[in-house]
Amino acid sequence: MPSEFELIARFFARPCDAEPGVVAGPGDDCALLAPSAGSELAVSVDTSVVDVHFPPAAPAVAIGHRALAVALSDLAAMGARARWCLLAATLPEADEAWLESFAAGFHALCRRSGVVLVGGDVTRGPLSLSVTVQGEVPAGRALRRSGARAGDVLAVTGALGGGRGGLSAWQAGVRDLDDPLLRAYLLPEPRLAAGEVLRELAHAAIDVSDGLLADLRHLCSASGVGASLQPEALPLAEGLVARLGETAAREAALAGGDDYELLVALPPETVAEAERRLGALGLPLTPIGRVVAEPGIHGIGDGARAAGWQHFPGGAS
Amino acid sequence: MPSEFELIARFFARPCDAEPGVVAGPGDDCALLAPSAGSELAVSVDTSVVDVHFPPAAPAVAIGHRALAVALSDLAAMGARARWCLLAATLPEADEAWLESFAAGFHALCRRSGVVLVGGDVTRGPLSLSVTVQGEVPAGRALRRSGARAGDVLAVTGALGGGRGGLSAWQAGVRDLDDPLLRAYLLPEPRLAAGEVLRELAHAAIDVSDGLLADLRHLCSASGVGASLQPEALPLAEGLVARLGETAAREAALAGGDDYELLVALPPETVAEAERRLGALGLPLTPIGRVVAEPGIHGIGDGARAAGWQHFPGGAS
Repeated sequence: MPSEFELIARFFARPCDAEPGVVAGPGDDCALLAPSAGSELAVSVDTSVVDVHFPPAAPAVAIGHRALAVALSDLAAMGARARWCLLAATLPEADEAWLESFAAGFHALCRRSGVVLVGGDVTRGPLSLSVTVQGEVPAGRALRRSGARAGDVLAVTGALGGGRGGLSAWQAGVRDLDDPLLRAYLLPEPRLAAGEVLRELAHAAIDVSDGLLADLRHLCSASGVGASLQPEALPLAEGLVARLGETAAREAALAGGDDYELLVALPPETVAEAERRLGALGLPLTPIGRVVAEPGIHGIGDGARAAGWQHFPGGAS
Repeated sequence: MPSEFELIARFFARPCDAEPGVVAGPGDDCALLAPSAGSELAVSVDTSVVDVHFPPAAPAVAIGHRALAVALSDLAAMGARARWCLLAATLPEADEAWLESFAAGFHALCRRSGVVLVGGDVTRGPLSLSVTVQGEVPAGRALRRSGARAGDVLAVTGALGGGRGGLSAWQAGVRDLDDPLLRAYLLPEPRLAAGEVLRELAHAAIDVSDGLLADLRHLCSASGVGASLQPEALPLAEGLVARLGETAAREAALAGGDDYELLVALPPETVAEAERRLGALGLPLTPIGRVVAEPGIHGIGDGARAAGWQHFPGGAS
């Protein structure tokens, strides 16, 4: 097996000392970064483990993309601009074709997101990827979970249920990365540009990683409010009903997880502007309910009965 | 198994919103940090994997300490002040006694190092810990690997060989964490205070994680210089000769790795001052050679022959 240094040099190190805000990239004990004056640093880490977060046979290019995407989604939820990342990769072996494809997926999303890979660590062990992301947000302006107020409109970007629907497609043997559901599952798009827009318009936000219902509960709990949900309003991922049927499709949208869309609480007067500005990014924004003063999630029981739902499994994949 | 949220809340989340520089700690999508004006951010990540970096049966308190210590050692090598960290923990099961002990080891070193745990991720899988550390250093003043100049004195903090000697002690059945060698292996002390002192006095530094010889090569390569080493001058860890014998002890000091001491290149005129200021911290500083213009490491061949060394195994544990 090539040494850690050879692997880093060949597949992960990209010259980045000339990138904005990077004083020194990989190659020393630490990366050195120059944060912007007047900004706060938003920092998050996400680990993707084989057989837990993605199937072992998933295309390496998708594993590289997805490991970074799920971490960047946390920056999007705060309305932060993505700046820098670190990759701690635990690899069972040095399969060079696999690594090349993995690195291609990772670096391609770095470029599109404006994030620079400034450091990392490569160790031997069961396949696992911890990605630390760092973003910047004007001081005091981050989009928190805790700002929702009674009367706010709840809305989600994009469509829901693609995470679970894509997993189902994968399990059914679908391997075409152009399949919309498989794309949603293996190649989720972090909503970074939308997050920066919504930072100026919304009271609160969270990304939908654990499932809409679970993440709505987190947002309501942090804000000390409740929610009145209109389950029939949830935007369903393309191909979801065809793949799962109507009932399971609505369940997947409500509780499936791994969707990496943004759930926001908007004052009613900014909803139209938010729809307009996200529309300009090619991203729909769909109202799905209201923030209410009374704690708890209301409207699911009726909706669930109406749609014939029996249960709402938690977690994903 | 308790949910990720319960685990985080019980064992890892500590109130830290009142800590300096922390705008928001765990509980939102990202931590929000306020970097100091005029500082650069030093960032590094290190992964510790069971059976690769520590034995499965190592005390949990030591695993928690060590996972953070090896990451902080990279901040020390840059002369950075430790500020914030994130812990991505992959855990095979929720053994509460184990987690409590692990968290105690992690948090105790956080407190002593002045570093605040601001976020993390808990996933299920084979035991593995990725720790991201963030420190601050006055802009333009970080201690790099690349600053060594011909004529500089090479010196190391503390003592060498304890990493390998402690592994040998562990394999021989030693379990007393008061044993000096076992302490060196399982409870290494990141040289943060020494790093901040040396930042003002040294031309270059690296931490000794891969073995003195390997790390000296990294430093020389980054600086475009060579080194003349006096192997007989290497300070040996307490108990090392008794454990391994003279020859293997000197081999361990030269190539054993996992020592987490600092190797520095000092202009001759600052050596006495560096010894004095590190002495005040209770830490010896030992000159072990000189930086020379000619590339390569000189003096090992003679020293090796003199001491009867046959080979210098690379890597550790």
